[in-house]
Amino acid sequence: MTVSSLSEDELISQIFAPIAGDGALGLHDDVALLPSPQGSELVLTVDTIVGGVHYFPGDPPGAVARKALRVNLSDLASKGAEPLGFLLSLSMPPQTSLSWIAAFAEGLGADARAYDCPLLGGDTVRTQGPVTISITAVGRVPSGYLVRRTGARVGDILAVTGTIGDSALGLALRLAEEGQSNGNLGWRDELTPLEYAHLTQRYLLPEPRNAIASAIRDYASGAMDVSDGLIGDARKFLRTSGVSGRIDLESVPLSQAARAAIDLSPELLKTAVTGGDDYEVLCSVPPARFEALRAQCAQENVGLTAIGKVEEGNAPLSAFLEGTEYLIDRGSYSHF
Amino acid sequence: MTVSSLSEDELISQIFAPIAGDGALGLHDDVALLPSPQGSELVLTVDTIVGGVHYFPGDPPGAVARKALRVNLSDLASKGAEPLGFLLSLSMPPQTSLSWIAAFAEGLGADARAYDCPLLGGDTVRTQGPVTISITAVGRVPSGYLVRRTGARVGDILAVTGTIGDSALGLALRLAEEGQSNGNLGWRDELTPLEYAHLTQRYLLPEPRNAIASAIRDYASGAMDVSDGLIGDARKFLRTSGVSGRIDLESVPLSQAARAAIDLSPELLKTAVTGGDDYEVLCSVPPARFEALRAQCAQENVGLTAIGKVEEGNAPLSAFLEGTEYLIDRGSYSHF
Repeated sequence: MTVSSLSEDELISQIFAPIAGDGALGLHDDVALLPSPQGSELVLTVDTIVGGVHYFPGDPPGAVARKALRVNLSDLASKGAEPLGFLLSLSMPPQTSLSWIAAFAEGLGADARAYDCPLLGGDTVRTQGPVTISITAVGRVPSGYLVRRTGARVGDILAVTGTIGDSALGLALRLAEEGQSNGNLGWRDELTPLEYAHLTQRYLLPEPRNAIASAIRDYASGAMDVSDGLIGDARKFLRTSGVSGRIDLESVPLSQAARAAIDLSPELLKTAVTGGDDYEVLCSVPPARFEALRAQCAQENVGLTAIGKVEEGNAPLSAFLEGTEYLIDRGSYSHF
Repeated sequence: MTVSSLSEDELISQIFAPIAGDGALGLHDDVALLPSPQGSELVLTVDTIVGGVHYFPGDPPGAVARKALRVNLSDLASKGAEPLGFLLSLSMPPQTSLSWIAAFAEGLGADARAYDCPLLGGDTVRTQGPVTISITAVGRVPSGYLVRRTGARVGDILAVTGTIGDSALGLALRLAEEGQSNGNLGWRDELTPLEYAHLTQRYLLPEPRNAIASAIRDYASGAMDVSDGLIGDARKFLRTSGVSGRIDLESVPLSQAARAAIDLSPELLKTAVTGGDDYEVLCSVPPARFEALRAQCAQENVGLTAIGKVEEGNAPLSAFLEGTEYLIDRGSYSHF
């Protein structure tokens, strides 16, 4: 059974209505309706993932759905915003199987509940291209408290949550599985099965840091999520704030699996700090507040690590490894 | 020059930032920020258009952009909502020319100003498939005043704005131009150049009825926009309201051009009343309020025509032509 065996109404009522939230009006109207949150501002973000570009066509559909939602949740988290809900646009070729769509919806519904971010509405259309999933998330912050990309100040500590590079290394492993790799992959066979699984899982499914959104709001001067590579995103962050800075690469938090890979093949450090899909929070924090923020994050089981500092000037942020400048021509994922 | 010659940042800063609104934060942050409207509820809708499915790849990019925005504006209008702004997700193949994107953005910016619906944010991604444009529009209604698809009541007049069928007939003409038609198109050569242009233009560019959104809110009991064909959409509307009804096809408002086409080839009436892309407002109105609503619409130069009535029962709405039932097996556009 493919999607072309159902009408759009059947698709909505049978597959998506069961996972929809209150504001969706049962998905039988053209729009979603949401109370306007008092004392708050609305925070809106959209991210799209495309089959064959942002995920592998054979990836489990539930994980694809969750990734599509989570990349948006990560944007809200890094801005100090709480989710209110989301809209889904799903473009599919006519031969898409109903079982794929059902598993997609099941994963989406599970994360909507887990992150308290209900499905409010959507659109399903036909395409001759790959499956394309566009999610618009709506959130709220107390009025005046959005954590901006312009907020980094000279003297602030640059810090990042979780670990960096797992996803980029996981992508390298997945590309090799798909026969699309052209790099040296000797390190791949030296990883333990658990290390291998850790890296590929982190590529498949980001872990957005929504649990610490309010802490970021309370303590950080500026923030963004790391989605296109740590170095490149940090450069954007500081440039937008009109400042410069440095990152000390030996401080960048790595998982045990990423550490093992880099020990096996040291040039993977560059992959780790310039690859995409980390979905961690990069923030600038006044030194006097750093320990308090780290403690708040620890309460939510989220690590926070100081990796550098904000400095005066207009020069692009530079990276150092053991005190020597580490030259990186291109610090981030290119979208085209 | 193609899109792959620019970074995503350059694409945003050079092409989209100039058309962005206040809440977009200059498009240099990950999110848009919008004041939460007091005394109002938020109305959210998303619609996606795909090259080769919802528009012809050779259509002018400015018109494609405007169509993508207008189909969303039409949803807001039919719900009695005023636009606050929109987010854009634009998926493009790497060979997309920068001139195409620039013309796309110019058309989008023109309509954003014309409809007072600013660009708030977006995402641009690469695809191997056709250009895919997903727009999420945000609007507001005074709290409690959303005009719902559940609102039609027995005895109400069914009415529709503007004219019906132009776009479906325009699509038939465009398909013939592209050599994709398999129907009898003898009527095509009998149209005057102005009639031909009227029909194809209405397919290219809908005219959403945002000027009468507040009148719909004040006078209609229920409403939806006609996007998938009048008969099919009217059936959905009444089914969602738990009622039945009838449409008298001789009352359905037709443009002079559509009238001419149907006179030349009477079976085109079915195309007109079941084809998609009208983007008119279909509403149910208590008889005592109908003339007042019509007068309000007339003030905005929008026609409003009574085409049938809401009746008791669960049977699907039926259509009559000169008193004889007009059988239609499938009343609307199929999305897959």
